[in-house]
Amino acid sequence: MNRPIDQFDLVAFDADDTLWRSEDSFDAAHRKFNELVQPHAPTGIDVLDALHAIERTDVSVSGYGVKAFTISMIRAAISITDGNVPVSVVGELTDLGFGMLTEPVQLLAHVPEVLDVVGAAKPLVLITKGDLVHQTRKVTTSGLQHHFGEVEIVLEKDPETYAHIFERMGVAPERVCMVGNSVRSDILPVMALGGHAVHIPYHLTWELERVDDHDEDVTELESISELPRWLGL
Amino acid sequence: MNRPIDQFDLVAFDADDTLWRSEDSFDAAHRKFNELVQPHAPTGIDVLDALHAIERTDVSVSGYGVKAFTISMIRAAISITDGNVPVSVVGELTDLGFGMLTEPVQLLAHVPEVLDVVGAAKPLVLITKGDLVHQTRKVTTSGLQHHFGEVEIVLEKDPETYAHIFERMGVAPERVCMVGNSVRSDILPVMALGGHAVHIPYHLTWELERVDDHDEDVTELESISELPRWLGL
Repeated sequence: MNRPIDQFDLVAFDADDTLWRSEDSFDAAHRKFNELVQPHAPTGIDVLDALHAIERTDVSVSGYGVKAFTISMIRAAISITDGNVPVSVVGELTDLGFGMLTEPVQLLAHVPEVLDVVGAAKPLVLITKGDLVHQTRKVTTSGLQHHFGEVEIVLEKDPETYAHIFERMGVAPERVCMVGNSVRSDILPVMALGGHAVHIPYHLTWELERVDDHDEDVTELESISELPRWLGL
Repeated sequence: MNRPIDQFDLVAFDADDTLWRSEDSFDAAHRKFNELVQPHAPTGIDVLDALHAIERTDVSVSGYGVKAFTISMIRAAISITDGNVPVSVVGELTDLGFGMLTEPVQLLAHVPEVLDVVGAAKPLVLITKGDLVHQTRKVTTSGLQHHFGEVEIVLEKDPETYAHIFERMGVAPERVCMVGNSVRSDILPVMALGGHAVHIPYHLTWELERVDDHDEDVTELESISELPRWLGL
């Protein structure tokens, strides 16, 4: 019997919005930013548009994650309002970021049982980008860490980074199946190496993770609960 | 001939204040913080003492590095002044942090030639903690990356973390020599694993890196320039 799982020596999972909710928090923070900052901005300014633009330019300096986002919110609030935002609002934005760093992990449905089933068949690895301290906190407090042989927290999910991880683990890219919600970060770079990837869309996608059209034929599942059956388990 | 280097299969280096200056920037930022925030603080408040205390409590949530420090400065400025710090000062603190993230790497004296000599004899690895994006920027822009087989950016430099790195590289801890400026992060945890370590003090030590007395007999060199001779190279 030829099961799809037999093609793989390693199943790799993204974390944010694949195993647990993440973008919901950023979405709520954007709404809170709008509520707090809009009243202090000149008429005719779209504060969320401006925040997105500042996030986009800041990412090359400050990277991904909640701390970078917190600093971008503060920079945006001061710049959009030309310094007229009350310092109490800056304090609230800082608290908002701090709250995001410590909020409990909310697992997505079916994740623990899927990791149980897939992990019984093949070694698993977690590959996530973002903030070292925050991602580590999420991994350790999620109760899921024992499923993964390695947890890789990386700066960028590009083909070079994946190639380095797979090489270090002694697995050929063609023998890897990567599972994630971001076509840009989880799917295309692994396929570029000759690996397999399964896209499980999340209902929210961060603007910086959106991709233009691509030609690759991407496997898509509606929910992680379909993964074991897709793998023939 | 028995050279010390023959005992080792791997030489590991810390980065901040071992290969390049780091604490000088934080020191300058602390002085700038004092200058900017003291005028807005109530009489009798030592703003630097308060900032250090906030850094100490924040580190468990926000981790090490410039972004965490920037957020701590902002939280401290607002809290110390009971919200009376002008938003323009918050803007200056944010700019100060952003400037630290992008400032050019300043190598310490003799570093490139020492890495050349030691790297010709044994594989080298860089092990540093802090912020992924900032440490990566420093490593890549330093021009030193080619000396290192691996660059490990970790959350905490504790014995477990070192053990994991050495195991993954297939090197027994007793065959490792770690070189760094922090007794707490570079020396004691490696010695606890049975590894060797060489302490090269830097003229500044971050308060959180200070250790109380310890019983271990630590090898100390005055400058990294003495390392090749100490290794018998």
